[in-house]
Amino acid sequence: MPATDRKTALIISAHAADFVWRCGGAIALHAEQGIDVTVACLSFGERGESARLWKEGKSLQEVKDIRRAEAEAAADALGVARLECFDLGDYPLHLERADKDKLVDLIRAVQPSFMMSHSQYDPYNTDHMYMTQVALEARMIAQAWGHNPGEQVLGAPQMYLFEPHQTEQMGWKPDVFLDITPVWDKKRKAMEAMQGQVHLWDYYTRVAQQRANHFKRNSGGQSGGRDCQYAEGFQSIFPRCVDTLA
Amino acid sequence: MPATDRKTALIISAHAADFVWRCGGAIALHAEQGIDVTVACLSFGERGESARLWKEGKSLQEVKDIRRAEAEAAADALGVARLECFDLGDYPLHLERADKDKLVDLIRAVQPSFMMSHSQYDPYNTDHMYMTQVALEARMIAQAWGHNPGEQVLGAPQMYLFEPHQTEQMGWKPDVFLDITPVWDKKRKAMEAMQGQVHLWDYYTRVAQQRANHFKRNSGGQSGGRDCQYAEGFQSIFPRCVDTLA
Amino acid sequence: MPATDRKTALIISAHAADFVWRCGGAIALHAEQGIDVTVACLSFGERGESARLWKEGKSLQEVKDIRRAEAEAAADALGVARLECFDLGDYPLHLERADKDKLVDLIRAVQPSFMMSHSQYDPYNTDHMYMTQVALEARMIAQAWGHNPGEQVLGAPQMYLFEPHQTEQMGWKPDVFLDITPVWDKKRKAMEAMQGQVHLWDYYTRVAQQRANHFKRNSGGQSGGRDCQYAEGFQSIFPRCVDTLA
Amino acid sequence: MPATDRKTALIISAHAADFVWRCGGAIALHAEQGIDVTVACLSFGERGESARLWKEGKSLQEVKDIRRAEAEAAADALGVARLECFDLGDYPLHLERADKDKLVDLIRAVQPSFMMSHSQYDPYNTDHMYMTQVALEARMIAQAWGHNPGEQVLGAPQMYLFEPHQTEQMGWKPDVFLDITPVWDKKRKAMEAMQGQVHLWDYYTRVAQQRANHFKRNSGGQSGGRDCQYAEGFQSIFPRCVDTLA
Amino acid sequence: MPATDRKTALIISAHAADFVWRCGGAIALHAEQGIDVTVACLSFGERGESARLWKEGKSLQEVKDIRRAEAEAAADALGVARLECFDLGDYPLHLERADKDKLVDLIRAVQPSFMMSHSQYDPYNTDHMYMTQVALEARMIAQAWGHNPGEQVLGAPQMYLFEPHQTEQMGWKPDVFLDITPVWDKKRKAMEAMQGQVHLWDYYTRVAQQRANHFKRNSGGQSGGRDCQYAEGFQSIFPRCVDTLA
Amino acid sequence: MPATDRKTALIISAHAADFVWRCGGAIALHAEQGIDVTVACLSFGERGESARLWKEGKSLQEVKDIRRAEAEAAADALGVARLECFDLGDYPLHLERADKDKLVDLIRAVQPSFMMSHSQYDPYNTDHMYMTQVALEARMIAQAWGHNPGEQVLGAPQMYLFEPHQTEQMGWKPDVFLDITPVWDKKRKAMEAMQGQVHLWDYYTRVAQQRANHFKRNSGGQSGGRDCQYAEGFQSIFPRCVDTLA
Repeated sequence: MPATDRKTALIISAHAADFVWRCGGAIALHAEQGIDVTVACLSFGERGESARLWKEGKSLQEVKDIRRAEAEAAADALGVARLECFDLGDYPLHLERADKDKLVDLIRAVQPSFMMSHSQYDPYNTDHMYMTQVALEARMIAQAWGHNPGEQVLGAPQMYLFEPHQTEQMGWKPDVFLDITPVWDKKRKAMEAMQGQVHLWDYYTRVAQQRANHFKRNSGGQSGGRDCQYAEGFQSIFPRCVDTLA
Repeated sequence: MPATDRKTALIISAHAADFVWRCGGAIALHAEQGIDVTVACLSFGERGESARLWKEGKSLQEVKDIRRAEAEAAADALGVARLECFDLGDYPLHLERADKDKLVDLIRAVQPSFMMSHSQYDPYNTDHMYMTQVALEARMIAQAWGHNPGEQVLGAPQMYLFEPHQTEQMGWKPDVFLDITPVWDKKRKAMEAMQGQVHLWDYYTRVAQQRANHFKRNSGGQSGGRDCQYAEGFQSIFPRCVDTLA
Repeated sequence: MPATDRKTALIISAHAADFVWRCGGAIALHAEQGIDVTVACLSFGERGESARLWKEGKSLQEVKDIRRAEAEAAADALGVARLECFDLGDYPLHLERADKDKLVDLIRAVQPSFMMSHSQYDPYNTDHMYMTQVALEARMIAQAWGHNPGEQVLGAPQMYLFEPHQTEQMGWKPDVFLDITPVWDKKRKAMEAMQGQVHLWDYYTRVAQQRANHFKRNSGGQSGGRDCQYAEGFQSIFPRCVDTLA
Repeated sequence: MPATDRKTALIISAHAADFVWRCGGAIALHAEQGIDVTVACLSFGERGESARLWKEGKSLQEVKDIRRAEAEAAADALGVARLECFDLGDYPLHLERADKDKLVDLIRAVQPSFMMSHSQYDPYNTDHMYMTQVALEARMIAQAWGHNPGEQVLGAPQMYLFEPHQTEQMGWKPDVFLDITPVWDKKRKAMEAMQGQVHLWDYYTRVAQQRANHFKRNSGGQSGGRDCQYAEGFQSIFPRCVDTLA
Repeated sequence: MPATDRKTALIISAHAADFVWRCGGAIALHAEQGIDVTVACLSFGERGESARLWKEGKSLQEVKDIRRAEAEAAADALGVARLECFDLGDYPLHLERADKDKLVDLIRAVQPSFMMSHSQYDPYNTDHMYMTQVALEARMIAQAWGHNPGEQVLGAPQMYLFEPHQTEQMGWKPDVFLDITPVWDKKRKAMEAMQGQVHLWDYYTRVAQQRANHFKRNSGGQSGGRDCQYAEGFQSIFPRCVDTLA
Repeated sequence: MPATDRKTALIISAHAADFVWRCGGAIALHAEQGIDVTVACLSFGERGESARLWKEGKSLQEVKDIRRAEAEAAADALGVARLECFDLGDYPLHLERADKDKLVDLIRAVQPSFMMSHSQYDPYNTDHMYMTQVALEARMIAQAWGHNPGEQVLGAPQMYLFEPHQTEQMGWKPDVFLDITPVWDKKRKAMEAMQGQVHLWDYYTRVAQQRANHFKRNSGGQSGGRDCQYAEGFQSIFPRCVDTLA
């Protein structure tokens, strides 16, 4: 358990903006619930997801600086407790053993109640599926009593996969919908911090509206027909352990 | 919502004994939680799952009577609120339109918070997969405002699939484990009520022990390492709607 | 081949409104291309998809009449060449052998260049998957030289599956995106003809906007970055036969 | 066990010619091994697989007579012990309860060491997948002690799925290859008995040649590089029980 | 777009001969259509696919020289515009970051309308599935505006997967068939250039004949029953963007 | 073929204890059949699967020594012909090119009739799925005539996947059950040699009992209803080549 008594969560994002579009609502909601959310950005998405900046003639360092600033502004808007930028480069993202160890260190430091990363398949963006593969590897190492013996080992946190672009092509199937209506303004504000991807603001607003429709479709008997306006969907990797099915 | 304020659940079982082996713990546990559990046995499993009785030379009526008595005893042991025997015959089980309507009536009368039935594939036992297909059809009809207009329509209860025999052959993958340790004695007693299938008592005791191991494996970070002794696993058909992922 | 030289298409819809939400753009677009599109509605969706009308106290006949009128108005808006209402009832939809024969007759009369129906899996709505199963069966019968010998047999038209609600839950994966921007106004008008499902107008407008985004994502190198505003997605059952891959 | 001490096998074929193309080699080979092979043809494939005869203007009865004669000639060539024609009609094939009971009777009479039928998915030919669904249902009923009590119940024979046309479209994956080189002449002769489908003789000769290549690819270490010339592939539904893996 | 106005295609082949057996017809056909086809051979298949040469006692350099000469002869026969041999070694094939960058450079230089590589799964030959994984990674990098800023970025070309050996074992499912009858002589000539794999000449001739049968089966209503004699099949990774479904 | 005439088998285990729990029975049984079984342990599982030892404050070297001793004792109990410890480290396991070459050398030295390794998917333990990926790569290299020319190349041995923990989560489906009743005492003794994982002794005893039940369920017609008490299950990667299906 972490130093404080607060629950924690860890988002592992291949590129700087992924956490905004894909789970910004979950971050803001859990932050409001008193959960410390740490976001790890393994790269800034500087080469592959900053087309506008490159068209403007920015240098690599400028692109990275801008992307970092945007990520920080978005994290602020969402109430992120800690934003960790690994700055490992993108397209392709690649982690050496030392980089993986640093990710393991972070997981152990955070001791998350749940983790999040990308879909397990993505033929458009191999960084995404590589990220999840590494996240699972790091989760396993963090659980090992013989890795840095004496440190607190990781329990068995759920690994959620947040929503990819073009879900059906990625074989991603959500099994949980989260009502993010109460924090929608924060997510929208965080999205608007991503100045280089204006075309995605409305796209992911519509995603949230569609998921709200799905929330309502699946909660007729479970949530009393609540008027959910915005939602996010997630796929769970591991089974849940419960005391009731009702 | 049903007449009383109590929550309810509905188990739809192709043959009389399925509810005992596959979700007896869930029934007993939820009964203790104050949830009224209704069990629908579409047949007694009289032809296909009563080999010992036929070897003893019993007649069809005798087999059915014995199986009914066993099911009632098991239901008593588990605290089932209502046991509904449709007596439609097995191997093969088949529902005419009127039979399906009767199942829809039951679903509406119960207004379950969750439903349960068999795995969606079972090449050994086509009754099982047929049962789930019909259960989904009946769930859909129960939701239709134009079916028996004026009746209370069904919400959107989860449909859990309980554990089949030889899980891997059925493509069944549990996504939720339920700790049934507190009610284990009741499940064991219910199993022992099935006098014609003594060879399954220990088999399903071991299933519960293995699932307890899986419960613990998956709850290191979620349930505080509780010493779960017996568990049951279930696969969910529909996504969940939640207010937190932690 | 049909009486005229015009190409034809056949949409097979379980309920009266499915063809509007799921392929209204495709219908209007192909109509503008000079293709005669026939729509077969196997039911009016009177029991299961007309909640508002039942809440208003309408009778079964009134509901069916209203739904038929709405379907006709939508078909008009889309330029449907022929709307065939089978009036077989819904929730559940069921076809007897004679009903299937009637569907085969229609397929042969139309001699479609392509057919369309629902996703092959839908645990929420068993009518949908049943419809596609029957559509494939009818397609097979229509190809048989010994079925009503002397009639023109069917060729090998593609069977497209149009977009279901909650695509990921249905295992539906689109492999073709169609730009419906030129006919968007017609689709919107057709949707607005469905007065009982106002909540779906904006939902399926957003679906079309999201699919337009996907169209653009997948056509960077294929369609010159055209500014597609609205699109529809489809899954193909059968392989295509082509003379070039470029 | 059947009346004699000979081992037996049962092929369940939707249409008269399926057993020739898809498992003619297996039939002839096992017949030579002293195994009695029974072939059940549920229909003659008279409507859907006899295009040439219909083009020639034959009547339904003529088509059926010709197809029966061809099936008998093929069965003779292969050494079939018993050819059972159910004459239930095709496109679509449909079994009423009494028809299924007759199939169960046959299974019990044969007491097969193994059974065979079609692939479990076939969007081109719904008769094929329906046939396998019914074959599994009949296998289950034949195992039931309460079905016609007193009869010998069925054991647990393997169900092999023989090769469909366009294997990849059917999701069929062979897990066993059988060397049919010693009986190739018999299979070719049986194929040539099917006078209405001359175009398939060479097609299925090539299939056998390709499968021989696969046999050799997979038997480098298992069968000593034998020069297999012709082979057939099968998919198993159930696990095998063995005393050695070597 | 490339320097000229001609359309282009890029084949990415793990070993020198793969492009001949698996897409030689597509290469020749598109070359005849005026499309410049570039073939990248990442290795010569010198260790793993040259058994005959090793049995003859050739040295590594000799094997590579012979394989290169064969590949060049085959490329000539097919009308390949450019054959690029990376000479990275096989069994296993491995690309360092610089090798991947070189592949990205090639992709950008070619600016292909479509790309081609191996199936995504192949337990017999891990080089094959590794190749496709790298091809997708390279495609992604080639699309990144920040990779070698100033270069022309890649659009969104289709990635076709050509036919593996033993298709069903690789989970490969063709969704497009290409009629290669007009260029069959060129493909046969190219195959005969591969002197070390004589046993595959007839094998892949039969593959082409079987695929022609499939072409005809799927084009009854689409291509007017053309008498296709030889065909090739391909699986598409990405959805298509179209203006008509007819 | 190996120097002697004895048949051989090769087990490739990521961590020292995997071969005990997952295929100890198969090892002992084949050893009794006169087959030389080699076990390759790529690591000792020192970091990730030795929690008890770390809790006791052992050093890394102590943990490895203890694990090696336990593995040797277990191998003795099972009659392993050769235990090869690669000592490559775990959590994560990683093989450099030289390590893979060493594994290839071992495969060629053993010339196994069959190989065994882990399931192909395991989100809990990425070492497991990595191990199988490498095992398939090494199998491929061992088959290459150009790898260390002059050495005896590998044939085409089956690759079995032994049973993972939580089978359904790994997508593992057994297609063969092996009766290990005659060697059960040896397996139990080998398990008891693993002093650090006492909690698994009974767990895997129950696994063997459940698999025995499955053996009996699937061998009614194949093995004469033998009273199997303990069994192990395996999934085959490659098709089998046979001379009979009976």
